Amino acid sequence: MTKITPYYAVIFTSIQNENTEGYSEMAEKMETLAKSQDGFLGIESARDQIGITVSYWESLDAIKNWKQHSEHLLAQQKGRTQWYNWYHVRICKVEREYDFKST
Amino acid sequence: MTKITPYYAVIFTSIQNENTEGYSEMAEKMETLAKSQDGFLGIESARDQIGITVSYWESLDAIKNWKQHSEHLLAQQKGRTQWYNWYHVRICKVEREYDFKST
Repeated sequence: MTKITPYYAVIFTSIQNENTEGYSEMAEKMETLAKSQDGFLGIESARDQIGITVSYWESLDAIKNWKQHSEHLLAQQKGRTQWYNWYHVRICKVEREYDFKST
Repeated sequence: MTKITPYYAVIFTSIQNENTEGYSEMAEKMETLAKSQDGFLGIESARDQIGITVSYWESLDAIKNWKQHSEHLLAQQKGRTQWYNWYHVRICKVEREYDFKST
């Protein structure tokens, strides 16, 4: 996904608790829901010791709307009470980008 | 790591080739070297199907200097010829951040 800059990225880094019951289902549900939001551009995730999810958005308003989406609010609450030991959210403006593809 | 915004983030996403010989050693070496650079603030990495490494920097100049560091240039070249099938680099300004810690 290469888009015309500037656009926005939300870097979500997290460490989970041992109790991950229901987490995968919710993560999958939230990813599907995020993809249907206005202004959504893309999402990338990886997890080993730490989890990193980066979602990409057209505007700060799109990020704000997604943060306040009712189902997402429930997921965030469950994240705080159950799944996450720690998380960190960074709202970023993507100013420049480039990519490489092997031939 | 919570810093006073704004600062900068480099989001590096990648897909590796099957030939990963020498990759871990180089990744470790580059992480150590990055940490010794002026303006370096932090680094976070995770890999499963995709690899995501986010490094944090005080300024765009610090990012530029690191990109052009001679040992890092060699690593980048080896990355393109040997290790990476694909990668994507995004230079971002971190405008806002917040975190959560369970009690």
